[in-house]
Amino acid sequence: MGFTSEAIVARGPFSEGKWAIEPVTLREPREDEVLVEMVASGICHTDLHCGNTPADKGVPGVYYPRVLGHEGSGYVVRVGSAVTKVKPGDAVLLSFSYCGSCYVCKSGLPSHCITFFDINFMGEPVFSDGIGGRFFGQSSLARHSIVSDKSVVNVSDLGLSRDDLKALAPMGCGLQTGSGTVVNVAKAGEDDCIAIAGMGGVGLAAVIAAKNQKCKVIIGVDRIESRLALAKSLGATHVINTTGLEMSQITQEIQQASDGLGATICIDTSAYPPLVAAQVDATRYMGKIIQVGTGMPDANLSIHMQSFMVSAKQYFGAVQGHSRTGEYIPKMVGWWKDGIFPVEKLEKMFDYKDFEEAVNVMGRGDVVKPIIVWS
Amino acid sequence: MGFTSEAIVARGPFSEGKWAIEPVTLREPREDEVLVEMVASGICHTDLHCGNTPADKGVPGVYYPRVLGHEGSGYVVRVGSAVTKVKPGDAVLLSFSYCGSCYVCKSGLPSHCITFFDINFMGEPVFSDGIGGRFFGQSSLARHSIVSDKSVVNVSDLGLSRDDLKALAPMGCGLQTGSGTVVNVAKAGEDDCIAIAGMGGVGLAAVIAAKNQKCKVIIGVDRIESRLALAKSLGATHVINTTGLEMSQITQEIQQASDGLGATICIDTSAYPPLVAAQVDATRYMGKIIQVGTGMPDANLSIHMQSFMVSAKQYFGAVQGHSRTGEYIPKMVGWWKDGIFPVEKLEKMFDYKDFEEAVNVMGRGDVVKPIIVWS
Repeated sequence: MGFTSEAIVARGPFSEGKWAIEPVTLREPREDEVLVEMVASGICHTDLHCGNTPADKGVPGVYYPRVLGHEGSGYVVRVGSAVTKVKPGDAVLLSFSYCGSCYVCKSGLPSHCITFFDINFMGEPVFSDGIGGRFFGQSSLARHSIVSDKSVVNVSDLGLSRDDLKALAPMGCGLQTGSGTVVNVAKAGEDDCIAIAGMGGVGLAAVIAAKNQKCKVIIGVDRIESRLALAKSLGATHVINTTGLEMSQITQEIQQASDGLGATICIDTSAYPPLVAAQVDATRYMGKIIQVGTGMPDANLSIHMQSFMVSAKQYFGAVQGHSRTGEYIPKMVGWWKDGIFPVEKLEKMFDYKDFEEAVNVMGRGDVVKPIIVWS
Repeated sequence: MGFTSEAIVARGPFSEGKWAIEPVTLREPREDEVLVEMVASGICHTDLHCGNTPADKGVPGVYYPRVLGHEGSGYVVRVGSAVTKVKPGDAVLLSFSYCGSCYVCKSGLPSHCITFFDINFMGEPVFSDGIGGRFFGQSSLARHSIVSDKSVVNVSDLGLSRDDLKALAPMGCGLQTGSGTVVNVAKAGEDDCIAIAGMGGVGLAAVIAAKNQKCKVIIGVDRIESRLALAKSLGATHVINTTGLEMSQITQEIQQASDGLGATICIDTSAYPPLVAAQVDATRYMGKIIQVGTGMPDANLSIHMQSFMVSAKQYFGAVQGHSRTGEYIPKMVGWWKDGIFPVEKLEKMFDYKDFEEAVNVMGRGDVVKPIIVWS
């Protein structure tokens, strides 16, 4: 039996031309799963981390064949017997999954679930012929997919059109990570001078959020001029093009822009240790350095203990902006409807048949957030 | 002119026999200074850091001749014209000083004053013949000293005897650091599993505070058995003698004692990078690692960025337990009067003439907190 549809199946690294649209057959949803017809799916660097790395490199979370995609939107087709939060026909935005039963989930921080990696990066079989599914609980680079009910956020009460669902597809990953880090984690406000390293989807969503939180200084840091121009149009008060700069110069520029004292908050999406260290230096006393980007598995940050202690700085990480998706995603949709979360400025739509172009433009930095549309 | 008295003057490193009781002449108090007759002064490792290092090593904060001591208690003799918080005859406990005007002081965190080092470690001339004073605003290893009014806490309303002032002398440094870190910084409570590395005065005060906060697990970590026994008598539920243990074993023992999940709070007084790293590993998701000890000027902590981020741990430093001394020291005195802050268990009194023995027993680890009494 099973449900027949089509998906972008990764049978090896993208750069080796091993992603292709294939017919697939889905198993029935289990009691806690939902069959979703996708409207769209954003593409994120994490898709490439898992789908552009050779399988024999021993990188955790990399295997083939599988269906990637973890910024999906769509409509519910069928639900498992235990699913209560959606019914067939409901519009949904999809986000990460979590176990719901570990001590971290129980504390109310499911984005730091202790089995987050296994649940989201490994997923489990969903499609026929051993093709892996449930990437981030969803594997949304498919016309239809079996989705964890933990990944599903019901937005059917929000009056969204099919086109709206296309624009809002990336809410559940990059946009909530950037925005949530500013709002939920840093709790930034009017007195804050905030520096954001990396003007990708996460960083630009952080810029938008910082503007909405009325931060007095918002510094965008990147090496691509077009992204810095976009950051300015979204609310950055200062931008730093790192091309050709020493790390110490980046530190100085952040400090100068921040009352001459240093940033009160640094949000790092780069995970490049020298740049993170430059942000630690660029942070004023009592400031926070929030690690949002995840880099090489062996990347270490060296912290000078004495000066760090004396200056009362704080270093910590945050996954997915500490979002409780069921509450935070509708909140972001509300901001979008109010015109203060202009996600379209980051996006470009691509027909699903053009997925290769969509991935390539992101790789080149031409487009911040390409979105695959299931026409 | 000037006021003639006597002091323990450090004219070179203690271990070279260069500390001696000398007659000294003090200048008049300036408008924001207080002349204090000391009753007692605790000795702390910071006194030795500054008073047992050769001057030619280029270590910041080391110079001679000077009067050290920064855990003083006594009575006010004379006050400068702008001093309002004490009058002659008032009993006082002394603590660190601060500028009061920088952005950190204004935010209410004077223990992280941006000029803390200069004000407290360098001090300024107070005694005749170029002998440095105002170490931590007080230079309390003197029978009389000129003290910054910022260092003075008026305890004359608390009904303390002269003997009480001897026992309470160290409140303003080591004891408030350990206790304040648990109470003010970590805000530890009944659900916390707290590990404390280093069972000196700071660490043991943290044990006492953790017991008062009803932490369900309190782990004392040290390599000296007598200190671990003392920790147990003060409320530690578990102790780990690190002698002969690998760092990974220390990590495991902390984790096992802490619900098998890891500590929710680690307080490090050692500043030994491998031991701090072991505590980072021993901390559960969402846990805090608080750097309290300050070690070698070149000590760096290496943090594995990815696992640190994913596990939502936090690393930060805290000086003097974030104490606002005017409020926190009387609070500690109240606990002491209630019998739940038994500082005497850490202390041993020494006549000022026996200061060499007092320093030596601390160096050997025989006595946690030697106190010099100005008989």
